[in-house]
Amino acid sequence: MNLQVYLSGEIHSDWRQQLSSGVDQANLPITLSSPITDHSASDDCGTKILGDEPNPFWKDHKGAKINAIRNRTLIDKADVVVVRFGEKYRQWNAAFDAGYAAAKGKPLIILHPEEHIHALKEVDAAALAVAQTPQQVVEILTYITAESSS
Amino acid sequence: MNLQVYLSGEIHSDWRQQLSSGVDQANLPITLSSPITDHSASDDCGTKILGDEPNPFWKDHKGAKINAIRNRTLIDKADVVVVRFGEKYRQWNAAFDAGYAAAKGKPLIILHPEEHIHALKEVDAAALAVAQTPQQVVEILTYITAESSS
Amino acid sequence: MNLQVYLSGEIHSDWRQQLSSGVDQANLPITLSSPITDHSASDDCGTKILGDEPNPFWKDHKGAKINAIRNRTLIDKADVVVVRFGEKYRQWNAAFDAGYAAAKGKPLIILHPEEHIHALKEVDAAALAVAQTPQQVVEILTYITAESSS
Amino acid sequence: MNLQVYLSGEIHSDWRQQLSSGVDQANLPITLSSPITDHSASDDCGTKILGDEPNPFWKDHKGAKINAIRNRTLIDKADVVVVRFGEKYRQWNAAFDAGYAAAKGKPLIILHPEEHIHALKEVDAAALAVAQTPQQVVEILTYITAESSS
Amino acid sequence: MNLQVYLSGEIHSDWRQQLSSGVDQANLPITLSSPITDHSASDDCGTKILGDEPNPFWKDHKGAKINAIRNRTLIDKADVVVVRFGEKYRQWNAAFDAGYAAAKGKPLIILHPEEHIHALKEVDAAALAVAQTPQQVVEILTYITAESSS
Amino acid sequence: MNLQVYLSGEIHSDWRQQLSSGVDQANLPITLSSPITDHSASDDCGTKILGDEPNPFWKDHKGAKINAIRNRTLIDKADVVVVRFGEKYRQWNAAFDAGYAAAKGKPLIILHPEEHIHALKEVDAAALAVAQTPQQVVEILTYITAESSS
Amino acid sequence: MNLQVYLSGEIHSDWRQQLSSGVDQANLPITLSSPITDHSASDDCGTKILGDEPNPFWKDHKGAKINAIRNRTLIDKADVVVVRFGEKYRQWNAAFDAGYAAAKGKPLIILHPEEHIHALKEVDAAALAVAQTPQQVVEILTYITAESSS
Amino acid sequence: MNLQVYLSGEIHSDWRQQLSSGVDQANLPITLSSPITDHSASDDCGTKILGDEPNPFWKDHKGAKINAIRNRTLIDKADVVVVRFGEKYRQWNAAFDAGYAAAKGKPLIILHPEEHIHALKEVDAAALAVAQTPQQVVEILTYITAESSS
Repeated sequence: MNLQVYLSGEIHSDWRQQLSSGVDQANLPITLSSPITDHSASDDCGTKILGDEPNPFWKDHKGAKINAIRNRTLIDKADVVVVRFGEKYRQWNAAFDAGYAAAKGKPLIILHPEEHIHALKEVDAAALAVAQTPQQVVEILTYITAESSS
Repeated sequence: MNLQVYLSGEIHSDWRQQLSSGVDQANLPITLSSPITDHSASDDCGTKILGDEPNPFWKDHKGAKINAIRNRTLIDKADVVVVRFGEKYRQWNAAFDAGYAAAKGKPLIILHPEEHIHALKEVDAAALAVAQTPQQVVEILTYITAESSS
Repeated sequence: MNLQVYLSGEIHSDWRQQLSSGVDQANLPITLSSPITDHSASDDCGTKILGDEPNPFWKDHKGAKINAIRNRTLIDKADVVVVRFGEKYRQWNAAFDAGYAAAKGKPLIILHPEEHIHALKEVDAAALAVAQTPQQVVEILTYITAESSS
Repeated sequence: MNLQVYLSGEIHSDWRQQLSSGVDQANLPITLSSPITDHSASDDCGTKILGDEPNPFWKDHKGAKINAIRNRTLIDKADVVVVRFGEKYRQWNAAFDAGYAAAKGKPLIILHPEEHIHALKEVDAAALAVAQTPQQVVEILTYITAESSS
Repeated sequence: MNLQVYLSGEIHSDWRQQLSSGVDQANLPITLSSPITDHSASDDCGTKILGDEPNPFWKDHKGAKINAIRNRTLIDKADVVVVRFGEKYRQWNAAFDAGYAAAKGKPLIILHPEEHIHALKEVDAAALAVAQTPQQVVEILTYITAESSS
Repeated sequence: MNLQVYLSGEIHSDWRQQLSSGVDQANLPITLSSPITDHSASDDCGTKILGDEPNPFWKDHKGAKINAIRNRTLIDKADVVVVRFGEKYRQWNAAFDAGYAAAKGKPLIILHPEEHIHALKEVDAAALAVAQTPQQVVEILTYITAESSS
Repeated sequence: MNLQVYLSGEIHSDWRQQLSSGVDQANLPITLSSPITDHSASDDCGTKILGDEPNPFWKDHKGAKINAIRNRTLIDKADVVVVRFGEKYRQWNAAFDAGYAAAKGKPLIILHPEEHIHALKEVDAAALAVAQTPQQVVEILTYITAESSS
Repeated sequence: MNLQVYLSGEIHSDWRQQLSSGVDQANLPITLSSPITDHSASDDCGTKILGDEPNPFWKDHKGAKINAIRNRTLIDKADVVVVRFGEKYRQWNAAFDAGYAAAKGKPLIILHPEEHIHALKEVDAAALAVAQTPQQVVEILTYITAESSS
């Protein structure tokens, strides 16, 4: 079993590095993928490549669509999708990805601090696991990719 | 053409009533549907029907899943999904519904005030229309259900 | 909202009648459907219509397939699937229906006595609600088909 | 032809080892996969990784969902699904997997002792082969992966 | 339960009339549909409507495609597909329809005389019932559309 | 058999009226639908409803997406899609609709003058009928909705 | 481009060898697969592995289903399906495979002598190429796998 | 991330070579594929392999269908589809491919000169990026396949 795991959501903490380190140390048969996490590169990709837009809506629109080429492709290829909600920002794209992945039948692992339990109840209800730390996600990935004892 | 339109998102303003009045006044061939918008009924349905839970996570879990029976069924039956993001709260369930509907190939109309343009760019990028007022949504629904002149 | 609800599982208690009475009394916009619950009619339909079989395996095989014409069609048409596990028998067909419905993306309500919690954990994990009495299922159906207050 | 074959069901006999030995001896182009068959590891994975639960229902729920991440992924990747029903226990998860795999269009091979013919008739009716011994399954896998004589 | 049943296959005997009479007499909630069974109308529709073709292959091609507009639409709308193989002709279109319906997940009832058991084994293996007379098909349809006794 | 037929393509001749008259005169069980064929209404709907755009690309973008809400919904609901290519303009939207409908498995009838045979060969190759006049399409629709003689 | 091509149909001439030789000589990036073409092995596999059946129908049934495990898996994995109809026998399984592959959206190449044009018109109408010799099929496969000149 | 990218559309300029050079120079993990771009080979493949046709419609039909075996297979396997519209010809096949890819959920990048903005508005509305030069497409592909900085 070799799994593709997509890491969606928060880009302002080092949770992806923690998770990636854990996967490396456990030597798991897992390939991780992510959106572009360089915030300004992600925000500016549309106008930088396809030309300036005076209206901020269309600037964002061009950029968000180019990011969607990457992100929807990676979610479609993923076996498991992990979505992280952090303390800051509205992170509607994280919740959008969770809904998108749920509708595609992808097993979802949601990662968020305890304070968001009520606000994320619909998202958590669609998940197969709700974790609070990247280390817990590593343990889940370790468990589900173990060789069976039989 | 008789359309099913599902109205997802914000439950703390009267946008659904405005939209419903507009649809009625224009006599459109449209059936509107919504989640349960009585906030406490929605929050409490799980424990009220299936028994108390001491842990708030499981209380929310039970309730969110019962609401999902209604809401996913209505989205699956909808021809068009309208998702409203308001000024308050995190509204992750609205973004989740948008992602779910997008992955199911449902035409999306997103409704939000201008201030959320940047935060909602990924959601807007998946939509076929982005409106700022319920009246605009009524005009879109009027236009798309018109008898063709031919 | 008019829902099709399929009632799978146990045929040796009156849970379907209880559930049907509750739906009638609440005047819900719901059409219930079921497998053929006359035990001997269900067991014998294959050989009765298509000819005797000396080998019990093929007798069962013919009958189970004719029942499958009815049951899979009804599950495929259903908006919600309720599966009841009773105290007696192995009820593998109930668990099979639950897995079939889950893979088709149908919202599942599982109904069983508390004693089966551990044995049914994989089935319950795929459900959007786990109830212990037909009355609870009626309450769920009442809640999810309510007119929204907006 | 290189086939992925998932082995679902009974974990209290050595049928997987028998089948695996047979596949090895015949040098078949087949990769076998299984659920986690260490009973207590499987039962406890939820609370061990994600935290204790005083209520046995939620303990089972957490565990069953983590196992579902593994098992549904493996069934979705499988070309053929073998489901074994043993003499003991209710094995509703085995029947659930059979229904899930059937709805996904996976060819099913069911393996069970003769005494369960009547109780498993609906499951057997959805299968492409019903065997009584692991050796028979090995022979089927040998036959279907043979080089064609042409 | 109101079922759409498509009657594919042989057009040189009166099996459709027998089946239709049986459905009428039993007052079943079933709508039957068929290909165009007027042999020459069916053979000539392409060139009659869209212009002559000197090459018999293209004449047949035009006609078969127009018939496909009707027949694939009816199979796609059908809940159950009945395919009749008669004593004469090669009836490859009947077997094609059976394969098409099987891949679409439609419950199949195959109707043929005993002499074709060996030649039709692959088709029969994909069916949920194999009957020898139209009356048996009527009995199956009666059984599967019965009100449940519960 | 009651069919939904969507009429895509050219909006500068009266082919839809001819086809509609023919359907009416033949009293066919067919409901026709179309895009908005008022050229300026169609071009301007985006900016008229959702606000002006200085850049013609975004003006067109807004309008085309609102039209897509209508048109994709109608194609998705259609049983048969007719696409007309006229003498003038590039009509890339017609060819886009044909490709979209083909990928959705909709039976396609293409209607174009003889001069476009070579340029439309890929589109025609995906069709079940290629006609030159609206009257031929009416004859096809008459034929495929006829009561079968059996 | 590396293509999987499944060769269905007639097993009483050497067309598969001719086609395979042509593919080898042209060094095409193609992997061919086939049903088991040893006639008696194919007929007897069911009873040989799973036990005798006194009734020829069930003997055929068991065998046809084991063959279906192989054949449907291979069709599902195939990029292109070639179906050969020969001079002899009814070959309903070949037409069934063609219908099954068509419904799965697989590009179909049909191979048959000129005498069967009329009897195979519905099958040919679903194909993207109709050839008369294995060499023509090799030429098609050569053409469609060529490096593009650009 | 290794992506399959299909290049559809115009065959009379060197845009594919420009794009391919850019991909090579940037050493991107991308495999490009194309239709057969040798114009006369593409036009003549049908009659050359399968025999002459006196009627130009059928000559084109045979050829377009053989090309469809290649092109639909490549679109179905593609992660991203780029469609180029040039200055000349009607290029209905390009718009057809865009519609086909859109309905299959493939991310679309459309490439065309500014003069076609209005005529291509429906096609552009279905795209995730609209570029004017092959170099811009290379930059998009570079961006979406970058290693994430996390």
